[in-house]
Amino acid sequence: MRIGVLGTGAVGQTIATKLVELRHDVRMGSRDAANEKAQAWVAGAGERASAGTFADAADFGELVFNCTAGAASLAALEQAGEDALRGKTLVDVSNPLDFSSGMPPSLTVCNTDSLSEQIQRRFPETHVVKALNTVNARVMVDPSLVPGEHDVFVCGDDEAAKSEVVALLEGFGWPRKRIVNLGGIDAARAVEMYLPLWLRLLGAFGTPQVNIHVAH
Amino acid sequence: MRIGVLGTGAVGQTIATKLVELRHDVRMGSRDAANEKAQAWVAGAGERASAGTFADAADFGELVFNCTAGAASLAALEQAGEDALRGKTLVDVSNPLDFSSGMPPSLTVCNTDSLSEQIQRRFPETHVVKALNTVNARVMVDPSLVPGEHDVFVCGDDEAAKSEVVALLEGFGWPRKRIVNLGGIDAARAVEMYLPLWLRLLGAFGTPQVNIHVAH
Repeated sequence: MRIGVLGTGAVGQTIATKLVELRHDVRMGSRDAANEKAQAWVAGAGERASAGTFADAADFGELVFNCTAGAASLAALEQAGEDALRGKTLVDVSNPLDFSSGMPPSLTVCNTDSLSEQIQRRFPETHVVKALNTVNARVMVDPSLVPGEHDVFVCGDDEAAKSEVVALLEGFGWPRKRIVNLGGIDAARAVEMYLPLWLRLLGAFGTPQVNIHVAH
Repeated sequence: MRIGVLGTGAVGQTIATKLVELRHDVRMGSRDAANEKAQAWVAGAGERASAGTFADAADFGELVFNCTAGAASLAALEQAGEDALRGKTLVDVSNPLDFSSGMPPSLTVCNTDSLSEQIQRRFPETHVVKALNTVNARVMVDPSLVPGEHDVFVCGDDEAAKSEVVALLEGFGWPRKRIVNLGGIDAARAVEMYLPLWLRLLGAFGTPQVNIHVAH
């Protein structure tokens, strides 16, 4: 399918590359169509890869990934445009991390709201699905990097959109039973507020290739 | 050893009962020395069990558990008193949950602070160790209720106090390698902010006997 990937950082590049490998047509979006990282990615990713503005990428995609930094996501999606996002599934991989006071980062929104809910409220005709924000970029598209059983989460108000995302995650290598449906988009609070623990686990185990398994 | 357990709810009763089974002398503390739940617990728990005010229990204990509701913890510890808590390890099992707006609860403090840090700041000569707040009361003292490998976390600024708590957790049935040292008391933010995810996992799997294992 045609997929727009918003963001040119490690998460955007990793997901865009994996999607091309899976034979999707991918357009990477950034603030500036001449973005050097996006151009370099296109040059290396083959004929299914293209790049443009946030609006170009959102317009191109039948489905769109938000891989921008959380603190910049709402502005990036505003540039993508309500019309380009209307009726589409938006996979929100971002985390609302605030690095302005140094490490560890705090969250720009939490507790009684979440970034995904803010996005869903701003774009009510888009089907926002929170996913993959709880693992490192490389793990997102290659869960075998972390040994043993470990899980990812999906949240969203539209069940069909969630199913579409679950199918993509299976394509990334996540077994169906390792994908936990946490409920509506308000559950994004839970997975965004998990980030401080994830960052501590990185420190405790000395690797970003760390994840959690739900035992029950 | 002599242990004070502040709080008469499910967490306090479960931990106090387990500690008595492990042949510790336990005094349960509550706001009112005549608290019916505490009296009933003493009647059933044998000669190593006693009850009193928060101050009585804190004074009695060589080590103290805070099992009060998070929203009431600072007030309870104020009643326990700075002198009674001085120089002791305080195991903070509480979560700063705010149920005033219904379910799911929000947190009374998070992101740039935590309840454990508030307690540590208020009682600087007490060694606060956050532990066990990430699992159900029954699981705290019987990890075998959750199948497979799964982990608990300890945070605190005093390594000797953390080691003391780790030894107690091993007595509760947690294997040493399933107890993750997350760092200083500021890491309490991470485990307190995990609570919204824990509550979602309860809903998703339909059981409070759920926990996470760190795969790495």
